[in-house]
Amino acid sequence: MHSVGICGSDVKFWQKGIIGVYVVRNPLILGHESSGTVVALGEGVTSLKVGDRVAIEPGVPCMQCSVCMEGRYNLCDDLTFCATPPDDGTLRRFYCHNAKFCHKLPDNMSFEEGAMMEPFSVGVHACRRAQIGPGYTVLITGAGPIGLMVLVAAKAMGATAICITDISESRLEFAKSFGANYTILIDPKDDTEAVADKVKVAMGCLPRVTVECTGVESGLQLGFHATRPGGIVQIVGIGPPDVTIPLGLAVAKEIDIHTNLRYCNDYPVAIELVSSGQVHIKPMVTHRFNLEQTLEAFEMAKSGQAIKCMIECARN
Amino acid sequence: MHSVGICGSDVKFWQKGIIGVYVVRNPLILGHESSGTVVALGEGVTSLKVGDRVAIEPGVPCMQCSVCMEGRYNLCDDLTFCATPPDDGTLRRFYCHNAKFCHKLPDNMSFEEGAMMEPFSVGVHACRRAQIGPGYTVLITGAGPIGLMVLVAAKAMGATAICITDISESRLEFAKSFGANYTILIDPKDDTEAVADKVKVAMGCLPRVTVECTGVESGLQLGFHATRPGGIVQIVGIGPPDVTIPLGLAVAKEIDIHTNLRYCNDYPVAIELVSSGQVHIKPMVTHRFNLEQTLEAFEMAKSGQAIKCMIECARN
Amino acid sequence: MHSVGICGSDVKFWQKGIIGVYVVRNPLILGHESSGTVVALGEGVTSLKVGDRVAIEPGVPCMQCSVCMEGRYNLCDDLTFCATPPDDGTLRRFYCHNAKFCHKLPDNMSFEEGAMMEPFSVGVHACRRAQIGPGYTVLITGAGPIGLMVLVAAKAMGATAICITDISESRLEFAKSFGANYTILIDPKDDTEAVADKVKVAMGCLPRVTVECTGVESGLQLGFHATRPGGIVQIVGIGPPDVTIPLGLAVAKEIDIHTNLRYCNDYPVAIELVSSGQVHIKPMVTHRFNLEQTLEAFEMAKSGQAIKCMIECARN
Amino acid sequence: MHSVGICGSDVKFWQKGIIGVYVVRNPLILGHESSGTVVALGEGVTSLKVGDRVAIEPGVPCMQCSVCMEGRYNLCDDLTFCATPPDDGTLRRFYCHNAKFCHKLPDNMSFEEGAMMEPFSVGVHACRRAQIGPGYTVLITGAGPIGLMVLVAAKAMGATAICITDISESRLEFAKSFGANYTILIDPKDDTEAVADKVKVAMGCLPRVTVECTGVESGLQLGFHATRPGGIVQIVGIGPPDVTIPLGLAVAKEIDIHTNLRYCNDYPVAIELVSSGQVHIKPMVTHRFNLEQTLEAFEMAKSGQAIKCMIECARN
Repeated sequence: MHSVGICGSDVKFWQKGIIGVYVVRNPLILGHESSGTVVALGEGVTSLKVGDRVAIEPGVPCMQCSVCMEGRYNLCDDLTFCATPPDDGTLRRFYCHNAKFCHKLPDNMSFEEGAMMEPFSVGVHACRRAQIGPGYTVLITGAGPIGLMVLVAAKAMGATAICITDISESRLEFAKSFGANYTILIDPKDDTEAVADKVKVAMGCLPRVTVECTGVESGLQLGFHATRPGGIVQIVGIGPPDVTIPLGLAVAKEIDIHTNLRYCNDYPVAIELVSSGQVHIKPMVTHRFNLEQTLEAFEMAKSGQAIKCMIECARN
Repeated sequence: MHSVGICGSDVKFWQKGIIGVYVVRNPLILGHESSGTVVALGEGVTSLKVGDRVAIEPGVPCMQCSVCMEGRYNLCDDLTFCATPPDDGTLRRFYCHNAKFCHKLPDNMSFEEGAMMEPFSVGVHACRRAQIGPGYTVLITGAGPIGLMVLVAAKAMGATAICITDISESRLEFAKSFGANYTILIDPKDDTEAVADKVKVAMGCLPRVTVECTGVESGLQLGFHATRPGGIVQIVGIGPPDVTIPLGLAVAKEIDIHTNLRYCNDYPVAIELVSSGQVHIKPMVTHRFNLEQTLEAFEMAKSGQAIKCMIECARN
Repeated sequence: MHSVGICGSDVKFWQKGIIGVYVVRNPLILGHESSGTVVALGEGVTSLKVGDRVAIEPGVPCMQCSVCMEGRYNLCDDLTFCATPPDDGTLRRFYCHNAKFCHKLPDNMSFEEGAMMEPFSVGVHACRRAQIGPGYTVLITGAGPIGLMVLVAAKAMGATAICITDISESRLEFAKSFGANYTILIDPKDDTEAVADKVKVAMGCLPRVTVECTGVESGLQLGFHATRPGGIVQIVGIGPPDVTIPLGLAVAKEIDIHTNLRYCNDYPVAIELVSSGQVHIKPMVTHRFNLEQTLEAFEMAKSGQAIKCMIECARN
Repeated sequence: MHSVGICGSDVKFWQKGIIGVYVVRNPLILGHESSGTVVALGEGVTSLKVGDRVAIEPGVPCMQCSVCMEGRYNLCDDLTFCATPPDDGTLRRFYCHNAKFCHKLPDNMSFEEGAMMEPFSVGVHACRRAQIGPGYTVLITGAGPIGLMVLVAAKAMGATAICITDISESRLEFAKSFGANYTILIDPKDDTEAVADKVKVAMGCLPRVTVECTGVESGLQLGFHATRPGGIVQIVGIGPPDVTIPLGLAVAKEIDIHTNLRYCNDYPVAIELVSSGQVHIKPMVTHRFNLEQTLEAFEMAKSGQAIKCMIECARN
């Protein structure tokens, strides 16, 4: 293994030991945003060779059930996923993975970029499911790592006006450096309709698509108020299990709500977008650590001050 | 005018004087499920002639704005709609309507069927938005008039196994006569997950699509629990403005929620389906009245004992 | 093995020894429309048990390459396919096949219907690729076995007006019994535009979709002349490698041409449609033989007098 | 009127007096790529005001027929189109047009860019119909004005590897400056399969989509040989009315052929893409003339030496 990024879910497992139905009952190795170098090949593997640098797609489906055969392998009931109990993750020096889900990195991509293919694939998947196209106006709620990944993916797919919201001014500034056209600072006490009006004033129109990346109910509700008739509210942020939504408003505008479960056939797209130079994600790594500093890295990730903490596993 | 069916919204305007943002402030003529005979033509109308029997599509859009130009005229901001304040409806002897939205009835269709093209277009629109295809398994919550319209539309589009729920045994029996494969009697105190299990046992699988036709929160929640991964929950029933949904569950199954605002380019399809004999909706008219009996008709509609009350406006 | 139907490609391999790039160089067992009973299970197979009656999907993909992962396994470069050199077919008493591609038959389906799931899956795939929906008007060129399979699939998906053409009056009569609304007898010397006019007169409109099932250039050209603007010409019939098409006409009407390679995730749909009673294909078997009469069966298939010749492999 | 670009069709009407079914029988004013300033408003127009700078979408549909209502107004049978007999074009000082099809130009766009919204809308429409998405590999045959417009539209929609072909080295060089990743010089005597191999070698894979912009049969055939299984061959170039295509090859790869008739709801997208800075088309204007030099401009356009000739109509 070379580089492993820390995801919010890693922090949550560390702190709470539980995410939804997944409970940590035994010691669990964390980490699922990762890249490394092939040191050995399983029998019959021909797609890779020793020395290849790869990004690791952490979920491995059965490729036999009906959803797999229909091309939506992320929905596979038998999927194993790095760092999701009971499966261990990649935060270690050596790790064994299904070759088919090790994606070769082009020479012009770094290991860190390779590790970031995981959150970026989430962004690509979300934008594809949200059917973002050329000339689209997009609202992104939340300027954390996933919000930023959605931002750069949306731009690469032709979105021409992107408004992003957050409760942190510095995150909004950071988002601007990745191409956000408009930013709106949110106060948790803000009235949703008032914020929707601000979006409309800033963009000069209602956005066609809202991508919800906060996982907070108010972010979701903003989506329904701000999105134009016929639009899509795309859910990426994972919040509480139950949420209240203004469904009457959604019906009145015939807005659809699309959800997002990780990614599916998105790693190759994500790699192409970065390798071709169409998307720049390197500056999202704000803090770097080595494997021995893992605890420190997790503390920083937990503090909310970092965008992306990256751990280098390779022994010097 | 010849025949006008009574819709739940007509009853609601009569009883409450308000539906969402629409408030009855002045006397309002109700009725928007209607058919009649052309008695006079406006200047320049060539698509119809006096004597033509027509079904009346009650919403007339501007055909100039961006949603109209993109083929989603039901979302037009300037749409006028029969019996929605301040616009009067069709429950009268003579009525003037945009010729483009008067659809000629084939000889083998009755005026009553013509009037029912309105709720049937809702059913067709819902099934198209829910992307129902051949071999699909479908759950319909609610066996009222709209649930039945969705049922026959879904069957016509190739759905091969349809399960329908209701709190009334007699409605479920009625639904069977329209081709429901499985029926489940609901008790309002039932646990949602237990009902979802019943659906799975009855159908032998989870349905690909749930079409929500109750407008009740528990119906919607059943959709999320019962629908298979990758499926669609289609909202047709209009309930309270705000509802609580198990969004975490939707994300875990990457289920999309599609909404439904009336219909758009669906009248010609609805007419074709009935005229070709592929769909039989005539037996849905359970009670008939003449224009002088309108109050009686509304009382019957309000009682919940009827499926569809039909008023004949034509003077004998 | 129980029942095996004879396909046009079987006859062609028998007579010419070559179809496109596939050349018969060694003795080859024919047959790929087949059903049978499980007599033994490979290691680890849990989806079937001995005694299960199954329809056999003849193509087995790798489920590892990018097209497989995207849900289009029929395009897999490593697909093996029954009775396509160098792979042997199913016309024998015992045959070994990948369990995942053996589809269990419901009790209410016969072995003959099971064998016909192969050509019916072609019909289902074609109609899905042609995006046939409710109220659609469809022209089918050619009333042979595939044309008939397309006909019943299109009806099951909601097509309300279907016109079918053929050079044989008796085939057209047969097509009527499967629900064709209009039939047009073709003389090979007919002018294409004149036939297109006949289609328009018969249907009262131009069809939205044409499904080409003749494999003859004139059938294809008819598609372009007859299809309405914005429609689709779906290619199912396989003709000469190079054909001349009126592309200028296609562009002027923005008609798309979709092609069809066998089927993909269509067997379960085909089985559902027959098992549910929505589609009746049994009467398409016009001639029956046992395994010892195989030569006779092929002679009959070659003669063009049969719709579907079916061989029973099971020993009495 | 301010700026009018010369299109290949203008030259053809001038030289031959006929394109397909359109025959010049009376004097005809040419020009349909145009922009100008509003000097007067028709009754009831509120979307524009005198002094507004606008790009003129030259086709005006009826907005009443079924294709218009379904959102595909470019297929309208009653469409009038600038400079298509018997309708005059825009190459003059003053011109009257339907306000709905006059698109306001943002301040940061020039009149020349406004005029180029016409060919760029063709490029956008083609890429949308070809379903180009992020990470797509695209082959464009022909590096003339339309090929270049497709190139920049495809890049804006996320295409990461674009190969373009032409018979002129200088055009290929020009294409590189607009972002073409690979270029292939074609000799009309080249064997199609050999060129397809060159594409594969250059790109390191087969492209998912080929956009045909030459209007020459060999360009189209290259598309079928070069496109990967499951891909799309998008027709933009208009060639001879009848062409020969390797349909057997298309079927073997289940390739679809999509056609392109002008544009539909693409002007707003085209304007957004240029105004937002995502697309740079200004350098495509290689030669400039004033209205008095129109003949000279047409001679230059005819010579094939220019990419885009632009005529300024405004009196100095």
